[in-house]
Amino acid sequence: MYQASIPQFTKMLNNLSHILKKGEEFAKAKNVDGSILVADRLAVDMLPLSKQVQIACDQVKNGMARLAGLEPPKFDDNETTFAQLQERIAKTIAFANSIKPEQVDGSETKEIQFSIKEWNFEFVGQQYLLTWIIPNFYFHVTTAYNILRHNGVEIGKSDYLGG
Amino acid sequence: MYQASIPQFTKMLNNLSHILKKGEEFAKAKNVDGSILVADRLAVDMLPLSKQVQIACDQVKNGMARLAGLEPPKFDDNETTFAQLQERIAKTIAFANSIKPEQVDGSETKEIQFSIKEWNFEFVGQQYLLTWIIPNFYFHVTTAYNILRHNGVEIGKSDYLGG
Repeated sequence: MYQASIPQFTKMLNNLSHILKKGEEFAKAKNVDGSILVADRLAVDMLPLSKQVQIACDQVKNGMARLAGLEPPKFDDNETTFAQLQERIAKTIAFANSIKPEQVDGSETKEIQFSIKEWNFEFVGQQYLLTWIIPNFYFHVTTAYNILRHNGVEIGKSDYLGG
Repeated sequence: MYQASIPQFTKMLNNLSHILKKGEEFAKAKNVDGSILVADRLAVDMLPLSKQVQIACDQVKNGMARLAGLEPPKFDDNETTFAQLQERIAKTIAFANSIKPEQVDGSETKEIQFSIKEWNFEFVGQQYLLTWIIPNFYFHVTTAYNILRHNGVEIGKSDYLGG
């Protein structure tokens, strides 16, 4: 469970940080306030870049905390600048790295229950990781990438996958 | 290895099929040739919807064939319509479902080598699945979703995650 999650999540969060740096540089080069890009979205009824990054972080922070039986750190969810998003990613990576393999390994069969608005979700640990955390995490990292790419930021697949 | 791959990949390919059906219905309702949507992209130098679906399928087809030591079926990569993309997804699901757990389980340490253009890649099986197939697969499924969403197709997170 640990091997299938934290090393790859922290790698991808570092890649996301790198992609956002390129977004920030792009805004500077265009002489545009970075917060315009941070608030941009692919459709009017879709979440903006800031929220994509927040939720990507939360999949790791809240998801891994649930599997490890820990209380996740609370963030204010009010980032409007690239610098604030970088800080959130750094705090998420630090939390993920504080989790030890033995706190997560063996959670395959752990019962996981949570609610989002009026929906209640029930999983066992392995199913929670494979069918919830992982697809949601990659969805939001990729959508953050796509928002920047759609605006003309020069990023490619190797920025997404990392070295 | 099997549990972490094929059941979730086939589920997500079914979700992708469902999302593309909504895209096809959207084009019909707008009285637009579906192939316009199939050829659309989020940036001029990004791959179109057809290619996003092709590559998502290929991550499963070629990736799982490599892990299982099988010869993957060859597709012509020439889809230009929703119907052709649906056929590709169906063939990919059928191939994935033909792979038995015992053909994939135990491939964690298998040496995987392949080349894309001038780049050579080397992995062991578990690393190949976690750091290559999975992030690439979700990237292309999400980007297909984002191209349709950006065009106004009424799809949401539950269409992506499936029931």
